[in-house]
Amino acid sequence: MTATTLANSGAGEIFQILRDGQARTKAELAAMTGLARSTVALRIDALVASGLLHPAGEAVSTGGRPPARIAFNTEAGVVLALDLGATHGTAAVADLSGRILDARTRAIDIADGPERVLDSILTDGAELLADLITPQRPLLGVGVGVPGPVEHSTGRPTNPPIMPGWDRFDVPSYVQRTHAVPVLVDNDVNILALGEHALRWSDVDDLLFVKVSTGIGAGIIAGGQLQRGAQGSAGDMGHVHVPYRQDSGRDPADDRDLEALASGPAIAAVLRDQGYDTHRSADVIELVRAGDQAAITATRQAGRDVGEVLATMVNMLNPSTIVIGGSIARAGEHLLAGVREVVYRRSIPLATQHLAIVQSQGGERAAVFGAAIMVANEILSPARVDAYVAAHADR
Amino acid sequence: MTATTLANSGAGEIFQILRDGQARTKAELAAMTGLARSTVALRIDALVASGLLHPAGEAVSTGGRPPARIAFNTEAGVVLALDLGATHGTAAVADLSGRILDARTRAIDIADGPERVLDSILTDGAELLADLITPQRPLLGVGVGVPGPVEHSTGRPTNPPIMPGWDRFDVPSYVQRTHAVPVLVDNDVNILALGEHALRWSDVDDLLFVKVSTGIGAGIIAGGQLQRGAQGSAGDMGHVHVPYRQDSGRDPADDRDLEALASGPAIAAVLRDQGYDTHRSADVIELVRAGDQAAITATRQAGRDVGEVLATMVNMLNPSTIVIGGSIARAGEHLLAGVREVVYRRSIPLATQHLAIVQSQGGERAAVFGAAIMVANEILSPARVDAYVAAHADR
Repeated sequence: MTATTLANSGAGEIFQILRDGQARTKAELAAMTGLARSTVALRIDALVASGLLHPAGEAVSTGGRPPARIAFNTEAGVVLALDLGATHGTAAVADLSGRILDARTRAIDIADGPERVLDSILTDGAELLADLITPQRPLLGVGVGVPGPVEHSTGRPTNPPIMPGWDRFDVPSYVQRTHAVPVLVDNDVNILALGEHALRWSDVDDLLFVKVSTGIGAGIIAGGQLQRGAQGSAGDMGHVHVPYRQDSGRDPADDRDLEALASGPAIAAVLRDQGYDTHRSADVIELVRAGDQAAITATRQAGRDVGEVLATMVNMLNPSTIVIGGSIARAGEHLLAGVREVVYRRSIPLATQHLAIVQSQGGERAAVFGAAIMVANEILSPARVDAYVAAHADR
Repeated sequence: MTATTLANSGAGEIFQILRDGQARTKAELAAMTGLARSTVALRIDALVASGLLHPAGEAVSTGGRPPARIAFNTEAGVVLALDLGATHGTAAVADLSGRILDARTRAIDIADGPERVLDSILTDGAELLADLITPQRPLLGVGVGVPGPVEHSTGRPTNPPIMPGWDRFDVPSYVQRTHAVPVLVDNDVNILALGEHALRWSDVDDLLFVKVSTGIGAGIIAGGQLQRGAQGSAGDMGHVHVPYRQDSGRDPADDRDLEALASGPAIAAVLRDQGYDTHRSADVIELVRAGDQAAITATRQAGRDVGEVLATMVNMLNPSTIVIGGSIARAGEHLLAGVREVVYRRSIPLATQHLAIVQSQGGERAAVFGAAIMVANEILSPARVDAYVAAHADR
């Protein structure tokens, strides 16, 4: 009993060191933690028995038998990542490092409600899993991204404007009817922020990710952690009020939420007032890509409006990096040019001196990658790993 | 060597459990950590030898000799807390829980520059310490608050507007010429936020503290941690740009930084335009307390301007509590009424549903308490405690 307790408790902590993918010997881990070699050996053996660590070749011998090295076995299990948008849903299976093993995207209508949408995407997921899971590589968790606000602690969408029928729906319980594993749910912008951060900016502790497309939202990483706030509604940038500015060139009556000023549909409405037949983000993007001057001007103005809110966030949170994503940002440099213009003029020099404002590089898979990272971080946390190791020791 | 390493490493982690002030037996700590009793016993013995823990009576026996309980010895050392304002400086000595043992306030002029100001406040500190430190209760750290932006990682003020001569001055090195202990420096609003949070809201993970007096600044606690940002300039609310709003009743030309609209001197200027002889925060406070209607109206409008910026922060960070402090807030409910009016109207319902906007209760000692907490958190961190225990084991 004592030996088992000692091996289990603290196993999760040692495991965190190895999540960087580096292979190490027991002696190296003892030196890094200051723990006795016997303690390290007990914990490592328990982690190897659970499958989360595996032998990874031998270190160079300093005389005598070369010591064995062990490493994180990213193939010890898989996670299912589900990314739901308004019109498309992607199911992906990833290993424990978040690497996507296979993925499938289908057309959905989020307004069909949670049961129909989840049933269809879980069917895709089940088909992918059938080819990828084995007794040695079980499903360990499910991460879900949805296009609306979520109470992260319960996984329930909360008054999601474009998701009729989803309000307060218990997504984790519904998914757990099929998969009895931890299920985490968050809004699409937070999972994009997690994906972008893990892919490109893992050394950055203070980062704002902003998505500008049909809606506008932000994912806030401060002190190295995604900040969800008290009710999980942090990052609701679309409903930030942007007052009229004298130098904006806008009408004084344009005293509105950011989303009503700078989203894809809002830019389309500005162009419609000028006689264009524009209704959706895609119409705007097409015009911008074709070099239409009115569309470029309206997109740049949208960037200035986004910049107005970000200038406040730069003074208040002092991030080192702002990443702008979403379909409007991907249409070219015009949105970013507007953002930069206002942020560098409005924010204090100390906060902008080393500030990078860049376009998202995450690509199409960033969302499912983020959903996979979200759930992997949970199931590989020290407490969960301790419990997993204990469950395997009892067998 | 092995036993010492085992006892030391992890001692800092066990110590964190006891920082809540509760006395516990070794058996209770073994159960809480899942560690073997022998491991717990080694670590506890090392912590007791270092003085950081001490016996705290006996638990109720369950048969046989009653087990000894041990607790955090908050008297194992003291910290020196220095709070520098524009015109006053306070030196205080606190125990390791932040409890103030003695304090002294003197008039200073921060513009006299770092050497003169620090010399005088350190003289006060030395006189307080002379009566309070003993070989069993040494000085373990110094926390300093200054009225301007600070690069927290180096302890150097950065372009502080009201602190001529202090720019890039190495405060920690200067203090360490007298006291060879860790020295942490931060701006006055961050230490107030830490003090207020520790005193009243330690169970709240997401809190904004706002100080409205001669200047305006914020301390941001998100995910339980004070967020300083990439360069340490987070919370610079005074330089957030507040654009003209149609419904504000202000002149469209009032397109300015928050500090130029809503600080004590800004309110004084508004009243001056109406014929009053007001120049400083104190003049405004006197009028408000006397029930002057123009002063009350101007203070309420200042609250609305502060609320305009806070509404954005509420949508973006979703705090559960906003605490408003500083001399203008203490003049009555008028500033808060203006803040509440705008925040509850502008922010999304999900974020304001459970949001409390309250007046600071920290009182005069909150700043030195915060400076003491800041440095105590550092010197009692797991790594520092491990090092401290190791140094005592070598003696």
